[in-house]
Amino acid sequence: MELKAEVINPFLEATVSVLKTMAFVEPKPGKPYIKTGHSAVGDITGIVGITGMTEGSICITFSRECILAIVSKMFGEDQKEINEEVKDAVGELTNMISGDSRRRLDAIGYHFLGAIPCVISGKGHEVKHITRGPILSIPFSTQNGNFAVEVCFK
Amino acid sequence: MELKAEVINPFLEATVSVLKTMAFVEPKPGKPYIKTGHSAVGDITGIVGITGMTEGSICITFSRECILAIVSKMFGEDQKEINEEVKDAVGELTNMISGDSRRRLDAIGYHFLGAIPCVISGKGHEVKHITRGPILSIPFSTQNGNFAVEVCFK
Repeated sequence: MELKAEVINPFLEATVSVLKTMAFVEPKPGKPYIKTGHSAVGDITGIVGITGMTEGSICITFSRECILAIVSKMFGEDQKEINEEVKDAVGELTNMISGDSRRRLDAIGYHFLGAIPCVISGKGHEVKHITRGPILSIPFSTQNGNFAVEVCFK
Repeated sequence: MELKAEVINPFLEATVSVLKTMAFVEPKPGKPYIKTGHSAVGDITGIVGITGMTEGSICITFSRECILAIVSKMFGEDQKEINEEVKDAVGELTNMISGDSRRRLDAIGYHFLGAIPCVISGKGHEVKHITRGPILSIPFSTQNGNFAVEVCFK
């Protein structure tokens, strides 16, 4: 699928909106770009597959510092380690960002279904998308570190 | 979705069949079981979302030793580290196991679509499924270590 701006914006807007609503964090989006062959590296990642007009997947990869600050605000309680509650929060954020992106895409005629998310944790793990299609990466910065949303299509 | 034997067997049979055909490795399946709350731990994982009659995801998590032996046989050449070729091979195996499982399920009336796989690498990373539904785990052993296939549904 071609990655026009109208396809990119729903993912960007959904990410900002979900983090603002759920965690009172306003992430600053950097310039989205098309990746060639590189992998995202982070400490915790939410992944969800999508099907519909084409197949794809959405990944959200956070540094440890960044996710602990986000979940601390989300829960109103200081989080000091990536425990089960933090993993579940990443799953919930992934589900909501996937759902909100798909609603926004639906409104402009792109129809997708979402699968069940998985959450990967482990210091400095790498996420590689297995596709010959384009991989969109949107970098975000927060006051407490960075995260990236990646979307790939077939 | 209920996890009857007829739903479990296609994943088990597809895994054995794909590894036999692609890598001349015959993995020995252990007893499939329903997990409650535990996460798979491994060094490299292929993940693919599924949608259709219900949503879910399929993960295949290998130890380093196990995947290096499998890909060595697959390529007919000794693999000493988890490099890009090994990651791509895990993506290909994940795609084929997902496809073959779905073909077998289709033949008995269960219809699913597959998303695009991601491959996660990083020593001892953990995979957590975000669902209130059942998580099926099928352990496999090979002459060179273990791997697990996990399937979750909504």
